[in-house]
Amino acid sequence: MKKQKKIAFSYIKTKKKIIIRWIIKTRSYCHHHQNLNYNLRQNYNKSSLQYLVLKPYREELKATIKSRGIKPKLVGFLANEDPAAVKYAESTSKTCEETGVTFELRKCDKEQLEDQIVEANEDDSIHGIMIYYPVFGDRQDQYLQNVVSASKDVEGLCHKYIYNMYHNKRYLDEKQTKKCIIPCTPLAIVKVLEYIGVYNSVLPYGDRLHGRVITIINRSEIVGRPLAALLANDGGKVYSVDINNIQEFHRGTGLKLKKHEVRDTNLKIEEILPFSDVVVTGVPTPSYKVPTDLLRDGVVAINFSAFKNFNDNIKEKASIYVPAVGKVTIAMLERNLLRLYDYHNYQS
Amino acid sequence: MKKQKKIAFSYIKTKKKIIIRWIIKTRSYCHHHQNLNYNLRQNYNKSSLQYLVLKPYREELKATIKSRGIKPKLVGFLANEDPAAVKYAESTSKTCEETGVTFELRKCDKEQLEDQIVEANEDDSIHGIMIYYPVFGDRQDQYLQNVVSASKDVEGLCHKYIYNMYHNKRYLDEKQTKKCIIPCTPLAIVKVLEYIGVYNSVLPYGDRLHGRVITIINRSEIVGRPLAALLANDGGKVYSVDINNIQEFHRGTGLKLKKHEVRDTNLKIEEILPFSDVVVTGVPTPSYKVPTDLLRDGVVAINFSAFKNFNDNIKEKASIYVPAVGKVTIAMLERNLLRLYDYHNYQS
Repeated sequence: MKKQKKIAFSYIKTKKKIIIRWIIKTRSYCHHHQNLNYNLRQNYNKSSLQYLVLKPYREELKATIKSRGIKPKLVGFLANEDPAAVKYAESTSKTCEETGVTFELRKCDKEQLEDQIVEANEDDSIHGIMIYYPVFGDRQDQYLQNVVSASKDVEGLCHKYIYNMYHNKRYLDEKQTKKCIIPCTPLAIVKVLEYIGVYNSVLPYGDRLHGRVITIINRSEIVGRPLAALLANDGGKVYSVDINNIQEFHRGTGLKLKKHEVRDTNLKIEEILPFSDVVVTGVPTPSYKVPTDLLRDGVVAINFSAFKNFNDNIKEKASIYVPAVGKVTIAMLERNLLRLYDYHNYQS
Repeated sequence: MKKQKKIAFSYIKTKKKIIIRWIIKTRSYCHHHQNLNYNLRQNYNKSSLQYLVLKPYREELKATIKSRGIKPKLVGFLANEDPAAVKYAESTSKTCEETGVTFELRKCDKEQLEDQIVEANEDDSIHGIMIYYPVFGDRQDQYLQNVVSASKDVEGLCHKYIYNMYHNKRYLDEKQTKKCIIPCTPLAIVKVLEYIGVYNSVLPYGDRLHGRVITIINRSEIVGRPLAALLANDGGKVYSVDINNIQEFHRGTGLKLKKHEVRDTNLKIEEILPFSDVVVTGVPTPSYKVPTDLLRDGVVAINFSAFKNFNDNIKEKASIYVPAVGKVTIAMLERNLLRLYDYHNYQS
């Protein structure tokens, strides 16, 4: 804890050299992607970090699909005219085409959606099903998440997967051959955090966020709360912020606790932001902005809202700023699709 | 439709004799409870209709439990201090004591609730589990509904039961030996409607609400929408009202359609209330009142909100007014408990 504070102060003092310092600090952790540091230094201002994270996944997916000669098929249901959903659907379509996944977008009336999902559940030619939310924009959407068969749920939003994730159950089977499906957007953010070295790979698996303080402004059942649970299950100390209060998700020290614990706090956002190593936001309004002056220098700032939750001056304050994760989310969607494709064929 | 209108007009003309007229009209339908008409006439002003509906169920439960010498056990989790929930818990406790069900109220912190449910799921001495909502008051509550094992879900709120209900699947097994568990409050309202003769028992089973127009002001996933689906599946024309719009749930004529269909309408509440035979309300605010003058004379008015959604003058306008269904809900809870008890013993 003391060490951590020192690092924090050193950030403040060396404001202009934050990125370099961060990279030096995290160099040894990035064994998966040896060229990260080079890329970060060379391209951080030129191309979005999102693409850097995305690239290896996309290439791996493409190579796998090509070499195995398979044709996994994903069906996306669009039952709204929400511009963000439409854009996400277009983006999914484009990415799938690039990687070799057959993608079919089915537009329908929201009242017909449930029947169409049931039909797709029973159609053997379809390996994955996703829905562009919001559909009804209320609890009925959560009902629909469970209408999608678990065996085709590429978004990882049905109760079975959410339950396993909250309970830190990492495998679907006793023999630990089938990894659980994890919701795409939280998973995408985890991958970004791994990529940029927030996960410390010298620590034991399952505790690699030990010592990290992460604030997540959003506690939705689709992203915010799952993400808080995932990061706490990996050893981080997570503050989950919503309009009602701030909760702390933590796992305690060591690997003794099987899953994260949650407790309500009376903390205010101005009390936690200055101590947060990472701030993740997903506030779905154009007006909300994180107060930059409250953030620590060198913070890692990630936004998954369709609106910009950070002011432009975040670029000066943050060591790493990721304005969107949508494309990584789609890569995770395809990754989950491949898993389900294999689980299906493995079972039969 | 023409006939229906005539009856409606005759209500208006004979305002002072509505109750008697209604009873004459429904006399032949009430074959389950031969003493209904007598009770309604004698006691409607003395005791609540709720008790009349409740009595035969409670007596049957009590007799069954006693004669079979069984000890079904229900555990209720209370993780809030909501006065309505506390009252409901007290009421459950009292009713269970009367009927011979072992009831244990477990109070806990909301953050401990999930672990406690998981523990109760695995405890063979417990036959039914219920949760007093709201806990978190958001989508996390819907997650908790699915944490309760389907084999102990007396409230019928897990996805499996809700899905079957929406899809009009009435049995859990192919051999049709196990009836599905139906959510308690919607089921309680169905039982009230059956009891007072809104269901027409001379029509074929599954279409006994044919010709009835029912407005439900509430479209929650716990009561309003399930109830709309149940009544539409039974042949009624249901208007489901929430703050956004009015939807029509219908089943069409005959038994051809397997389940209800839903469509959005542009109707306003003042356009549907004058034509509704039954108005069911569940608006959780003390300020909301149904405008009595818009209701047809002789309407059946049912309120399941903890607050009174009807003004006092409803008693003059309605043929039958049921201000609360909580006690019937508890009877349904016990009824579901007995079913699950039997399914469990039948299976093992």
